[in-house]
Amino acid sequence: MSTAGAKKIGFIGLGLMGKHMAMNLLKAGHSLTVWNRTPAKAQELVAAGAVLAKTPREVAEASEVLLTIVSDPPALESVLWGTAGKEDGALGGLKAGSLYVDSSTVSPVLAKKVAAECQQRGVKFLDAPVTGGDWGAREGNLVFMIGGDAETLKEAEPILQVMGKKWFHLGPNSAGQTIKLAMNAILALEVAGVAEAIGLVTKAGLKGEQLAEVLQSSMGRSGLLDLKTPLMLKGDFKPSFPLRLMHKDLGLALELANQLGVALPTTAAAREVYNYVKGEAKEDLDYSAVMKFWKK
Amino acid sequence: MSTAGAKKIGFIGLGLMGKHMAMNLLKAGHSLTVWNRTPAKAQELVAAGAVLAKTPREVAEASEVLLTIVSDPPALESVLWGTAGKEDGALGGLKAGSLYVDSSTVSPVLAKKVAAECQQRGVKFLDAPVTGGDWGAREGNLVFMIGGDAETLKEAEPILQVMGKKWFHLGPNSAGQTIKLAMNAILALEVAGVAEAIGLVTKAGLKGEQLAEVLQSSMGRSGLLDLKTPLMLKGDFKPSFPLRLMHKDLGLALELANQLGVALPTTAAAREVYNYVKGEAKEDLDYSAVMKFWKK
Amino acid sequence: MSTAGAKKIGFIGLGLMGKHMAMNLLKAGHSLTVWNRTPAKAQELVAAGAVLAKTPREVAEASEVLLTIVSDPPALESVLWGTAGKEDGALGGLKAGSLYVDSSTVSPVLAKKVAAECQQRGVKFLDAPVTGGDWGAREGNLVFMIGGDAETLKEAEPILQVMGKKWFHLGPNSAGQTIKLAMNAILALEVAGVAEAIGLVTKAGLKGEQLAEVLQSSMGRSGLLDLKTPLMLKGDFKPSFPLRLMHKDLGLALELANQLGVALPTTAAAREVYNYVKGEAKEDLDYSAVMKFWKK
Amino acid sequence: MSTAGAKKIGFIGLGLMGKHMAMNLLKAGHSLTVWNRTPAKAQELVAAGAVLAKTPREVAEASEVLLTIVSDPPALESVLWGTAGKEDGALGGLKAGSLYVDSSTVSPVLAKKVAAECQQRGVKFLDAPVTGGDWGAREGNLVFMIGGDAETLKEAEPILQVMGKKWFHLGPNSAGQTIKLAMNAILALEVAGVAEAIGLVTKAGLKGEQLAEVLQSSMGRSGLLDLKTPLMLKGDFKPSFPLRLMHKDLGLALELANQLGVALPTTAAAREVYNYVKGEAKEDLDYSAVMKFWKK
Repeated sequence: MSTAGAKKIGFIGLGLMGKHMAMNLLKAGHSLTVWNRTPAKAQELVAAGAVLAKTPREVAEASEVLLTIVSDPPALESVLWGTAGKEDGALGGLKAGSLYVDSSTVSPVLAKKVAAECQQRGVKFLDAPVTGGDWGAREGNLVFMIGGDAETLKEAEPILQVMGKKWFHLGPNSAGQTIKLAMNAILALEVAGVAEAIGLVTKAGLKGEQLAEVLQSSMGRSGLLDLKTPLMLKGDFKPSFPLRLMHKDLGLALELANQLGVALPTTAAAREVYNYVKGEAKEDLDYSAVMKFWKK
Repeated sequence: MSTAGAKKIGFIGLGLMGKHMAMNLLKAGHSLTVWNRTPAKAQELVAAGAVLAKTPREVAEASEVLLTIVSDPPALESVLWGTAGKEDGALGGLKAGSLYVDSSTVSPVLAKKVAAECQQRGVKFLDAPVTGGDWGAREGNLVFMIGGDAETLKEAEPILQVMGKKWFHLGPNSAGQTIKLAMNAILALEVAGVAEAIGLVTKAGLKGEQLAEVLQSSMGRSGLLDLKTPLMLKGDFKPSFPLRLMHKDLGLALELANQLGVALPTTAAAREVYNYVKGEAKEDLDYSAVMKFWKK
Repeated sequence: MSTAGAKKIGFIGLGLMGKHMAMNLLKAGHSLTVWNRTPAKAQELVAAGAVLAKTPREVAEASEVLLTIVSDPPALESVLWGTAGKEDGALGGLKAGSLYVDSSTVSPVLAKKVAAECQQRGVKFLDAPVTGGDWGAREGNLVFMIGGDAETLKEAEPILQVMGKKWFHLGPNSAGQTIKLAMNAILALEVAGVAEAIGLVTKAGLKGEQLAEVLQSSMGRSGLLDLKTPLMLKGDFKPSFPLRLMHKDLGLALELANQLGVALPTTAAAREVYNYVKGEAKEDLDYSAVMKFWKK
Repeated sequence: MSTAGAKKIGFIGLGLMGKHMAMNLLKAGHSLTVWNRTPAKAQELVAAGAVLAKTPREVAEASEVLLTIVSDPPALESVLWGTAGKEDGALGGLKAGSLYVDSSTVSPVLAKKVAAECQQRGVKFLDAPVTGGDWGAREGNLVFMIGGDAETLKEAEPILQVMGKKWFHLGPNSAGQTIKLAMNAILALEVAGVAEAIGLVTKAGLKGEQLAEVLQSSMGRSGLLDLKTPLMLKGDFKPSFPLRLMHKDLGLALELANQLGVALPTTAAAREVYNYVKGEAKEDLDYSAVMKFWKK
């Protein structure tokens, strides 16, 4: 563990992904100040040496580099701008010259708004949503989709390297979010497609397992489907990437598309199926539980 | 080229797929009688030793094994039951004890109807639609999705082996067609998903190539998307699997689903996008041309 | 009851609509030969003076004018072309110079096929699907959507007049069916629209009755919605126009649209909702039961 | 014109609807302070006696009753909370005990947020979106969909009476918005349904006018369709209710539905068609221009 180049890093959002990303930063020798809406989730990190701050603002004030990864746009807004009537938002604590990397998946509109705020304060900002799941987060194997300046990215790379093996520089701020939303639409449609196909063959009296076997021999096979199809057939919907988040991301993709005047009929149809299942669900499920629309 | 076990084979339907499948049978030493709606397409096969019959019935009469691969249900009905007022349909020529394998993609309802007719005549029947494209047909590398008796399949295997490397026995007659339609719905949704995603990021001012690059690093990557995405980005829609056939197959999948009372909202939405592009198209295009809905 | 101009009329299809239409013809003084797949349904008509034939062909042979109204394309094909191996289809019994009016809702393709057969036999044919429900049938208050020659229509008018108050001459054969399918798509979307709206406000904690009250004051109010909305709110889905028939008609509309290359995204989405409810239903329901998708 | 009960009224939003509503209030003897993003639109009202304020806050400060009707949620937020760094929002100027009626169509979530702010300040609030179009606004013939306290409504009635003939009290704050969004989904689906139907029959070689004529005789006829269908057939898409606003309202309805977990597959499909046409449009069009998806 090298501490040359060790930074004071702030980390906000210690969920399924964030806790592993933060731990990897700690293990790499960086000093960490953290915050989470539910402080209990910080225990393991604090035990490993992280400092738990009382507000997002405190995290920002203590850091050269701030990272955030929270569940949705309102959560990010609340972290950055703070609670009404309090001065506890992270933006207020960011120092000129510092670096801020947001790995939440939010709307490109919000990414642009954050970028504008950062620019006003002299803060360098990257939108950097990730893919790779909690497994990728734990293994330091994430893929980052980056929007922002090349120079800022350069500066962030030693940090990204600790959490991921790959990053794509996709354009100016918000480009990372745009590509992320498009990617998730592709994944959601792959899974919805297999779910519809299983629904069809099952009702026709055949076994979904046979469809899965044929799929394995076909050009349509993907790592995602290799992983999800057996779980869907077993009805094992333990959340890896939660349905509620995929549903939110499809909503963000459609919101963007409707702002731009791009019709996405297939994504829109799929979103309503995810919505249906989410509306019926009594527990937190993986997005492959879209299957439940057909298999009750 | 061995002629031990050589059979008298009839082959009907010498299109993109059929001509290669027939040629492989010929090369394997079987004797071939062929028929095609457009006789000119039989030239190469005739030059290689096949006999061109005047009617589907003649083909059946001359054969121990009949194979058909035509474009859609009406084409198959016309080949099997013949032209009104004429006795030229293949069914009438099939001998009791012979084997009939249909590799067209048609409705499971039609497959069952053919199976019933064959049973009445003492003919052994398999529905055996294929996947693998014209390249797979030429290389003898097709995958067969089989509906029918295990015993009949056993008998057909030496013939299938000449044209393909793999077959799945999926259930009784019509099971092959059901799985094929479900598989094509999956493929159509993968391609539609990438098309929508490219449509979105392009309108947002980013490059589809960047999305493609990220996709290559993601779990969503599939052989199909590796193949189609670059062509979609170039706007190269030379038909490999024609749009009109994928559109037809989506229609057959939805027809089946609506007979069974299985809702397929995503497939239905995608079908209308394929339909839109097909309606606007002035030439024969690959199904990846669904892209044209967004990129004009 | 006048018998001047009384005709020998054949009537096939004594369902919800047909039995009333036939009774009105009988009451108007025409002599009637009838046939129904389930002969028991002819009892009332026979008691009133109709003759029950043994086959559709017998009906046609006994008639100057043939009327048919059956549930779907396969039923019409079976009535007209008869059972395999028997010579019992109505087409075979139609005399040159006679008039044939089909009031079933079937595909325009089938209407054209029937028209071609009739022309070959010198039979004058109208496709004449109806709207107005069983109430309109009983009251002689139907609306006919007519495809065919003006001259043929002229000849049919005295007969139509007995069953309906209005007819629209819409074009050559199949035009009646095309307009009918388009009309039913409109009706299905009105009802689906109200169903989605009730689903939404109910889940938001408001009463569907309030939405209905506002709708009554709005430009969106229609006779159909005035009729169906209260029943939907009560959950009274006794079939007036059965779900299975509306679902079939949406399928025919989409089949036509997909043959023509016209995308109908909204109709396609609605069809899958009707399909979902039909697939779950254990009894015969009115099409307003599409409501059950949201209200269980 | 009576001035007994004349009030000091503030009116913000002088668009297609607002200018007529404000003028009716002026004519009824109320004194009016107005504000509009584009001040030029206030000229006619100022000439008739209204006072033009410099900020929304000034309007609120000068009024016993505040009315707002602006185009979308961001516009309302900007009017109420003001521009960043300025203290010019209307909320800041509202006096305890005053009455605030918002007739914009916005999300129920925003209506609740406004209600909460008003409650904190002792301001009585109604969400009161309207239907009836610019014609209804001019004639004082609007219908109001009201969310809020019965007592507050009682107090507002003398004012509402000047602008409309009817109001529905639908529940607590946000109920007006919820019903309004559901109503607009119904209207959008009626129009989309007719548009799809015209698209279909036209491509089948028939005339949309004939479909319209049949529709006029059917139960599906509505005031809305009587009005819009001829314009759609002529291609006259002069905005009465602009496409961009209907598109926005469909988006708000779907946003609400997705928050609540209610799937709206038909509305979602229709929204993408409206989105497609909006994306292609170069000018401001009526929402009946959804027709352009089929008729180019």
